[in-house]
Amino acid sequence: MPRFVVIGRTAAASPDFSLVDLAGTSGRLDVLVRCVRSALLVSHGLRRDTVVYLVLLGGPRAPRVLRVDGAAAKFLRPDERSLATLLQKSLAAEVPAGAQGFVPVRPGVSVAEGGLEAAIADLGGAAPLVLEAGAEDVRVAALSPNAAFFVGDHLGLDDDARARLASLGARSVGVGPVDLHADDAITVLLNELDRRAAAAAG
Amino acid sequence: MPRFVVIGRTAAASPDFSLVDLAGTSGRLDVLVRCVRSALLVSHGLRRDTVVYLVLLGGPRAPRVLRVDGAAAKFLRPDERSLATLLQKSLAAEVPAGAQGFVPVRPGVSVAEGGLEAAIADLGGAAPLVLEAGAEDVRVAALSPNAAFFVGDHLGLDDDARARLASLGARSVGVGPVDLHADDAITVLLNELDRRAAAAAG
Repeated sequence: MPRFVVIGRTAAASPDFSLVDLAGTSGRLDVLVRCVRSALLVSHGLRRDTVVYLVLLGGPRAPRVLRVDGAAAKFLRPDERSLATLLQKSLAAEVPAGAQGFVPVRPGVSVAEGGLEAAIADLGGAAPLVLEAGAEDVRVAALSPNAAFFVGDHLGLDDDARARLASLGARSVGVGPVDLHADDAITVLLNELDRRAAAAAG
Repeated sequence: MPRFVVIGRTAAASPDFSLVDLAGTSGRLDVLVRCVRSALLVSHGLRRDTVVYLVLLGGPRAPRVLRVDGAAAKFLRPDERSLATLLQKSLAAEVPAGAQGFVPVRPGVSVAEGGLEAAIADLGGAAPLVLEAGAEDVRVAALSPNAAFFVGDHLGLDDDARARLASLGARSVGVGPVDLHADDAITVLLNELDRRAAAAAG
């Protein structure tokens, strides 16, 4: 069960952004929206075994984390507008005061107070890996099928996140010689996992 | 110089679609917009050696082809809204009556009357390859660096396009065991080409 944690250093944790100008009004939540698509959607289907955490560190309600679970998600469409609409509704949902951990707000979508720590707590003992340009190639790296992959946004991971992940023993893995957008790096990584799963299944 | 030809069986060849509801009003031009991003944009940069053709077979002005050339393109941003705005302005541009072939309408963007044939004529002698689920794996296939890759949209290639590409001697290549969206297939293919180029450069 691959899990992806995408850290949006400026991405809106509140629903007060415009769907008409997502990239310009949401602290670049569009970058994270594209990661939801690449992690969860395939041709005419959904990766039911995959979970995406969006760590939202921007705006008045930050920090919060949205979790999108492929096993339970419904009505996911690939275009940015519909995915952003889903995230906006999820961020606007009423959450009972004092609720702990991830609270379901839409089918397959939950929200938690807190930043990177909220995601880490939810991951349990999953082996942490950081997707990073120039690191050990995913084609040769040991990859636990139970791994949690941490991905930076257009700004990359900040020093605090790096230090925290290092304290968890995270290794870094890379997807090739060219530094790719976060969503493309997820696509390449999932392709490698798909190939390994197919090979293991014979 | 990799070239991608994405065939949009219903994608609007005219600018009369709504940027507010791109997926719902443009004959799924959003699928092609995402292919422009994955083919041309990398982290903080552009693939200057790559060209994308969008074959637009939907709407009142069809068939037309948009060509986006990484060598000359400017101001490309990764979000669907800005890419769709660029394509809409390009489709709305005045083209001199009787103009032949591809006419420049924006920096790096040209438009031609005609469908698949207009793209094929512009490609010269490039070796044609079809990106297709289940075909020979790109990791082992012979891939000319001068190849032209033909990609279907969410509906796939129709029989006429298949027959025409077969008449050109096109081989099919696939990107792995899971059937991916067109933009993800392009990402995986370019990752393979990046790796081969890096290996060749030593």
